[in-house]
Amino acid sequence: MRVPEEIISAIRKERSFLIATHINPDGDALGSALALAFALEEMGKEIFVFDRDPVPEFYRFLPGFERFRQDIPEDVVRDAVLILLDCNGPDRASLEGFAFRKSIVIDHHETESSFGDFRWIDRSAAATGLLVFALIKELGITPSPDIATNLYAALSVDTGTFRYSNTSAGVFRVAAELVDRGAEPHVVADHLYERWSERRFRLLIETLKTLEIHDGIGLIHVTGGMFSQAGASPEDTENFSNFPRMIDSVRLAAFFRAAGEKTWKVSLRSKGEVNVAAVAERFGGGGHRNAAGYRIQADLEKAKKALLDACLNPRER
Amino acid sequence: MRVPEEIISAIRKERSFLIATHINPDGDALGSALALAFALEEMGKEIFVFDRDPVPEFYRFLPGFERFRQDIPEDVVRDAVLILLDCNGPDRASLEGFAFRKSIVIDHHETESSFGDFRWIDRSAAATGLLVFALIKELGITPSPDIATNLYAALSVDTGTFRYSNTSAGVFRVAAELVDRGAEPHVVADHLYERWSERRFRLLIETLKTLEIHDGIGLIHVTGGMFSQAGASPEDTENFSNFPRMIDSVRLAAFFRAAGEKTWKVSLRSKGEVNVAAVAERFGGGGHRNAAGYRIQADLEKAKKALLDACLNPRER
Repeated sequence: MRVPEEIISAIRKERSFLIATHINPDGDALGSALALAFALEEMGKEIFVFDRDPVPEFYRFLPGFERFRQDIPEDVVRDAVLILLDCNGPDRASLEGFAFRKSIVIDHHETESSFGDFRWIDRSAAATGLLVFALIKELGITPSPDIATNLYAALSVDTGTFRYSNTSAGVFRVAAELVDRGAEPHVVADHLYERWSERRFRLLIETLKTLEIHDGIGLIHVTGGMFSQAGASPEDTENFSNFPRMIDSVRLAAFFRAAGEKTWKVSLRSKGEVNVAAVAERFGGGGHRNAAGYRIQADLEKAKKALLDACLNPRER
Repeated sequence: MRVPEEIISAIRKERSFLIATHINPDGDALGSALALAFALEEMGKEIFVFDRDPVPEFYRFLPGFERFRQDIPEDVVRDAVLILLDCNGPDRASLEGFAFRKSIVIDHHETESSFGDFRWIDRSAAATGLLVFALIKELGITPSPDIATNLYAALSVDTGTFRYSNTSAGVFRVAAELVDRGAEPHVVADHLYERWSERRFRLLIETLKTLEIHDGIGLIHVTGGMFSQAGASPEDTENFSNFPRMIDSVRLAAFFRAAGEKTWKVSLRSKGEVNVAAVAERFGGGGHRNAAGYRIQADLEKAKKALLDACLNPRER
């Protein structure tokens, strides 16, 4: 992994930086931004950290999470160099309205924009955190425990904690170095996976009881009544759509969440080559190959039937 | 990690080995045994692999799993050196009735017997697979992809795929080497976590419905009736004990599985510093700090109460 020379020298030369990442930030976005902020501060730089959206509650263990601001002071826009992380266009970070005097882009997503004076986009990297780790080392900074924890969290989230196909030997080598520098795998895992409320856990069980499987498609749902009975809210259902994937025969999992009168928010998850983005698009939604979603107004049974029809006739438009 | 010299030389000197591991074998037991079998065969040794219990279905992706036998030929008992893996007493492997001319014990469990001519017990090792990895290297064998996959699975299972507190920098370094040698993290993870039968998934839901939480202790159970109704078997409950750990307030999870008339097999899992090995020992069982187990003969309610009493009075013996 070669860090572009011009990014190293731009960072060395400049004094003030705005580190920004994408809307609805995940662990890779947040961890990468905070790690870089701490590292550049060790070099004596002035750092401002921005995201349009507040840090989700379950990421509020990341050292420095409180540094994220949802607005940017005028003098920062005027003086700072933008470093855009884990995305590569200003729209993804809700920064379309700003003109920065210089900008650096560091990302591992598919390239779609041409934004940025200096661009470093490595699609082969499992996480933006890996690029930030290489950059920090190239800058001569030894990661502090706070930096190591943020980068470890970034790596964990984007590899499914070492379960996805992007988990390479190199990923494990970086993980080892981060643990040497103070990251604690079980502490990060505990925050990511073991902080459910009892209410959320019981709602999950009720939801999984609704499982139906038809032709490799696993369907689950939460009705308004189930929400009331559990005293739970829509945020409590985060990640529910992944559970039916545990079943060998399920290639596509669909989670129907009540979102108003006869209205359903549908989350789709798939394994391997099954493309759920194409399915979601037929209902006016979208997403990625293995994770997508849409909204539909119908009775639950009709909504489920429409999805099954769409999945079983994938080419019909 | 220093491999005892006398184990190296005993292995070099002898020709025929019986590799055995504990009853109800898990991924560390099976993966360690198969990896060592392949390595010693590369050295020209004759190897017989034994476990009292058949390989559970979801471990039947481990290269060489079909090598396990449930009985031992007379000539093997007479000629072979026993290598006992992932346990350290013959009772744990159901080998009490046999007299071997020499025996080697390699294990990482807390509970100790004095069995064996050569004993290597390293409680600080996250998995027996790590000890086998060190031994294989010391013997001058380069792990084949089959060896690497077995050791990677061993490591994955005993660290909760890098989520438990035993996940050290050293664990990640070994994982990196195993991936270099042909282990595929996402393939192993898929087999471990996404190959559930529908029957097993539905039994999990029924089991999680039994959840009670008392003072940070989460209790779940499966009765004989629940097994019959689901058409499920004890091996379908592998890993059930981990699920209550998802809940923030649960520091210790206990899973009671019906194992005969008023008899329960109890699996304990804990977070952080909570030592469940000490709790299990009070009931004649054993294990590790964060994963242990025992059997108890009692009505379910009494068995649960006895556990709660033991947990809430940890020092009383």
